[in-house]
Amino acid sequence: MIVVMDEGATEAQIQAVIDRMVEMDFNVHRSTGMVHTVLGGVGPEEEIDPTAFEVLDGVKECHRIMSAYKLANRHFRPAGTIVKVGNVEIGGPRVVIMAGPCSVESRDQILLSAEQVARAGATVIRAGAFKPRSSPYSFQGLGEKGLQMMREAADTHGLLVVSEVMDSSQIPLMLQYVDILQVGARNMQNFNLVRELGKIRKPVLLKRGIAATIDELLLSAEYILSGGNYDVILCERGIRTFETSTRNTMDISAIPTVKKLSHLPILGDPSHGTGRRDRVLPMARAAVAAGADGLLVEVHPDPDRALSDGAQSLRPEQFAELMDQLRIIAPAVGRTI
Amino acid sequence: MIVVMDEGATEAQIQAVIDRMVEMDFNVHRSTGMVHTVLGGVGPEEEIDPTAFEVLDGVKECHRIMSAYKLANRHFRPAGTIVKVGNVEIGGPRVVIMAGPCSVESRDQILLSAEQVARAGATVIRAGAFKPRSSPYSFQGLGEKGLQMMREAADTHGLLVVSEVMDSSQIPLMLQYVDILQVGARNMQNFNLVRELGKIRKPVLLKRGIAATIDELLLSAEYILSGGNYDVILCERGIRTFETSTRNTMDISAIPTVKKLSHLPILGDPSHGTGRRDRVLPMARAAVAAGADGLLVEVHPDPDRALSDGAQSLRPEQFAELMDQLRIIAPAVGRTI
Amino acid sequence: MIVVMDEGATEAQIQAVIDRMVEMDFNVHRSTGMVHTVLGGVGPEEEIDPTAFEVLDGVKECHRIMSAYKLANRHFRPAGTIVKVGNVEIGGPRVVIMAGPCSVESRDQILLSAEQVARAGATVIRAGAFKPRSSPYSFQGLGEKGLQMMREAADTHGLLVVSEVMDSSQIPLMLQYVDILQVGARNMQNFNLVRELGKIRKPVLLKRGIAATIDELLLSAEYILSGGNYDVILCERGIRTFETSTRNTMDISAIPTVKKLSHLPILGDPSHGTGRRDRVLPMARAAVAAGADGLLVEVHPDPDRALSDGAQSLRPEQFAELMDQLRIIAPAVGRTI
Amino acid sequence: MIVVMDEGATEAQIQAVIDRMVEMDFNVHRSTGMVHTVLGGVGPEEEIDPTAFEVLDGVKECHRIMSAYKLANRHFRPAGTIVKVGNVEIGGPRVVIMAGPCSVESRDQILLSAEQVARAGATVIRAGAFKPRSSPYSFQGLGEKGLQMMREAADTHGLLVVSEVMDSSQIPLMLQYVDILQVGARNMQNFNLVRELGKIRKPVLLKRGIAATIDELLLSAEYILSGGNYDVILCERGIRTFETSTRNTMDISAIPTVKKLSHLPILGDPSHGTGRRDRVLPMARAAVAAGADGLLVEVHPDPDRALSDGAQSLRPEQFAELMDQLRIIAPAVGRTI
Repeated sequence: MIVVMDEGATEAQIQAVIDRMVEMDFNVHRSTGMVHTVLGGVGPEEEIDPTAFEVLDGVKECHRIMSAYKLANRHFRPAGTIVKVGNVEIGGPRVVIMAGPCSVESRDQILLSAEQVARAGATVIRAGAFKPRSSPYSFQGLGEKGLQMMREAADTHGLLVVSEVMDSSQIPLMLQYVDILQVGARNMQNFNLVRELGKIRKPVLLKRGIAATIDELLLSAEYILSGGNYDVILCERGIRTFETSTRNTMDISAIPTVKKLSHLPILGDPSHGTGRRDRVLPMARAAVAAGADGLLVEVHPDPDRALSDGAQSLRPEQFAELMDQLRIIAPAVGRTI
Repeated sequence: MIVVMDEGATEAQIQAVIDRMVEMDFNVHRSTGMVHTVLGGVGPEEEIDPTAFEVLDGVKECHRIMSAYKLANRHFRPAGTIVKVGNVEIGGPRVVIMAGPCSVESRDQILLSAEQVARAGATVIRAGAFKPRSSPYSFQGLGEKGLQMMREAADTHGLLVVSEVMDSSQIPLMLQYVDILQVGARNMQNFNLVRELGKIRKPVLLKRGIAATIDELLLSAEYILSGGNYDVILCERGIRTFETSTRNTMDISAIPTVKKLSHLPILGDPSHGTGRRDRVLPMARAAVAAGADGLLVEVHPDPDRALSDGAQSLRPEQFAELMDQLRIIAPAVGRTI
Repeated sequence: MIVVMDEGATEAQIQAVIDRMVEMDFNVHRSTGMVHTVLGGVGPEEEIDPTAFEVLDGVKECHRIMSAYKLANRHFRPAGTIVKVGNVEIGGPRVVIMAGPCSVESRDQILLSAEQVARAGATVIRAGAFKPRSSPYSFQGLGEKGLQMMREAADTHGLLVVSEVMDSSQIPLMLQYVDILQVGARNMQNFNLVRELGKIRKPVLLKRGIAATIDELLLSAEYILSGGNYDVILCERGIRTFETSTRNTMDISAIPTVKKLSHLPILGDPSHGTGRRDRVLPMARAAVAAGADGLLVEVHPDPDRALSDGAQSLRPEQFAELMDQLRIIAPAVGRTI
Repeated sequence: MIVVMDEGATEAQIQAVIDRMVEMDFNVHRSTGMVHTVLGGVGPEEEIDPTAFEVLDGVKECHRIMSAYKLANRHFRPAGTIVKVGNVEIGGPRVVIMAGPCSVESRDQILLSAEQVARAGATVIRAGAFKPRSSPYSFQGLGEKGLQMMREAADTHGLLVVSEVMDSSQIPLMLQYVDILQVGARNMQNFNLVRELGKIRKPVLLKRGIAATIDELLLSAEYILSGGNYDVILCERGIRTFETSTRNTMDISAIPTVKKLSHLPILGDPSHGTGRRDRVLPMARAAVAAGADGLLVEVHPDPDRALSDGAQSLRPEQFAELMDQLRIIAPAVGRTI
């Protein structure tokens, strides 16, 4: 930790800060500059809030040196993590495509979806059985029945299943049906949930919250990792900004940033990232070109009649077109599809 | 619902949109302009996503006319809601002050806190027993023991208790000890939690998420109201913006905006809103001057040694000074403290 | 400057950074920690971009210690600056109210405006003669004729004049008519303009850009101060955030933040800060309660027929009501109106 | 224009709005709904501010139907604009690469830069002679001498020249030396400047401001187009968000959005978009994959010793590597490099 004292900080103020650091078990190195005195502290940094020093009299600013996350840090596994599920490897040389409708709506719909996305080249089917909806009056999902239908559809077409878990009480049920448990953006900082997911031994797909910094995303991953579950997959799905022409602003730069800071694989979700079907292809291509380990894409057999998120779901033929484009792009980043 | 067709939209495109609206049970009124054709629709608006129309060919934009929330709408109770808890009225002529430490740390600490805030004029004590923390390595709260201590401290000093519930499984426990259940900013869109809180009959204090629009805040309130629990209190506690000199940007304008759109009372939380003790007094005064129905303020007997959020906790004497300032300001908005 | 090396940075990487620092004329102090090596540098900090070090191999992060602004820094004048114009003091015990229409529209309109705002207690009239408009098809102002009318109206009613200068070529003209030259939010980083304003000897009112941090606002002030013009008045007028219920989010916390970092006076502009007449009163009260040195408020004799910004202009009777409320609030912060 | 009246709006309120619309020369169509009365208006929409209606009593919201920009609208030239400069076509099948150092620093530096970027495949050299810098103490550029050097370097290596104009007074000088005049992000809403650029007959490269919506970008383009200069090239270069791990958040989705709304070509600037050399390659690839008509990239012979923006400048060998990657990606979007 580094504390920079104000220009004109008094000796008494400096000493008070040193005393406080010592009391908190920091070893202190004082460097008295012409303008600013700087105090370096070695100690229990992960427990302190830099602002707690910044509000002390005579302090200009305080910086934490150690990353707040350890197990999610690139240094923990410099070679990078490959999450293996069945015969799919996420984080390896192949870009993994997870596709499917927003919600499971019926047996026929999910069976047809599975067939369509499998044929185009997806290896994982995505769909929701429990839906977090902004309004209490919107369709809330089919629940366990939906999970059963999705499992059947996936097995029929040789796919894996990823689906969202909304509450820690749903974990046992989810474990019966899905291969990857997804944590939605709104639950990224539901700490009860992520702590519980640290105790299971199935991969977790953790989506970035719409107002979460990358550091906060990695801290939420740390909750899961510190429980002993090392199979965490991250996902960029758009952040909230002032721009309103798309629902969210998909932060493509998060992909190389996560690659630098962490060993965990990262996907892009151009469907939620844009909220509009006509922006999904460009942003899906951009995510792969930027180095994403995979994509999460909404595809629906008949998007205009989808019970949720139809506006951002691709038609099956658009998805097939996208896959063709991605096959051209992947070699530019040393990958295959 | 209003759908504006593009300049140059073809008759076939216009007809396809009309067909889609009819299929969704809308009555359609077509107005063919020189440049833009406009389609007005009366029907099940709350179930549609305007973007679903915006991605149709030839559509320029689509606007929902009805508010997505009904029970939270000002029109539902034009006179405004007063939430009564014990002999405290939130939303009435008196500005209600809820104060106390971030976390319950010990019996002595919370007893002393209660004494200090009661003496200065607070009527509700606030403190956390379950703490949502960004890092898994931070202090996570005392749990039920903390709730017991807080109840005792409140009763000793004639205060009510507000404390955060983090998960629906904690509701029965909370109901034994607290008078108002608080939903934290990170859980504003934990829809399982807010739905369950609609089933209880104790007031809920719902904090705005750091990336939530006011419409989304009111939709989350709608989850609670639609369950039959009408005692909802809102709270502005800072949104995330590009500015980094404070932890969040406290959106004071949310106070008059909520007053216009909704009948529910709204508090300001200058502690989380700024993250720094030295900004709390100005922002607390600003919130009351802007018409807030009350404040949620962190006060700690010894903030430098607080186990959480010490940086944003007032010292007891600062809190007393604040109360004196608020007594001057309140009459400017026709209130008392 | 402080450079924190990555966990696992090699000796060669550390040495390369030290060599680079020495080449840039920094004295370097090396502190070799268990995890992170930290390099402290004393030298020409104002000329370096911390990112230039952050992209070097093995570097985790780099912090500048010295503030980038010097003359705008609180330490330059700890007692605070009072800008004197005629018999008005901005930054002194009296809260200064500058009010008037968005644009000068006619001689009658500005004479009536001056009379109305003077009667209610304003001491400075504000209005635009050159208008920056997002659309080339909107009213662009009356130019010099407008300045003449405003001067006459001000003199008739004993007011000072503040008006916006949009381009450095307009400065000589403005100097003939106005007492305070205003730099609009869109021009805050028009460095040619602010540099030229450093050469004049009339006060400059510098508005914060809608995406400018407070550090950037103070750096733009530094351009003016470093030219020798010390009479700079800052103004918070709303920043751009994700919230759309108001045009901008007025960042009231900028007021105490500027007070801490700088000696320059700061005003609040609730008209641009909200964009809606019905939010102006609450936000004007909030700004004064938070410690603003004054307000800039749009008032129009007939806002519904204003040629620009009518939506955010107060009616004269609303302005008088506001002044009465502010007279109650000001004593809470030790001020008068 | 569409005005939606509040639930419970009185007849008198509705009539007052109609009267106001009529007074403003709108033809009004009234549609009286069960809940909301809706007023459609055909008239001088470009001159009205929807908020002016939203603050009237009984009004819920007001939407403008017509786009505020006309000449920049896709409908004005559905086939898209190709800007031709020398033998370079921007907006055509070839992705155009503009590269070079942030600033001209010396004759040798710019000659070497031109040689390096030309060899790798760029067709336009970019560099600044007048530099907008946040701090008055930073390097401000070589001025006319820099322009001369750049012209010579470009001519020697068969390149075109793009460089930034900071003020309308610099236009005549720029016209002597450059092929494309660039408007920087900070000047996007310097309306004096863009209006003057409408009068010249050389292409203008208009960069999006860091807090500008796409609508505002197109409105600034409209200033230039409405002056009769149709050769406008847009550029996405990062917007300001809450995320701090990159200087800006490059909004890749702006590329397909601009393509849909406007006929003007759009470039991506991954150097300013990220502020960090190690993010430039991924984001440059992403921009081309998303459909950008070209790139603006900073390349410096020795970035560690650059006088400005070294942190975001590529080394020449990195630029050559990027060009190789782009040659793989371009066919995925039907383009060549």
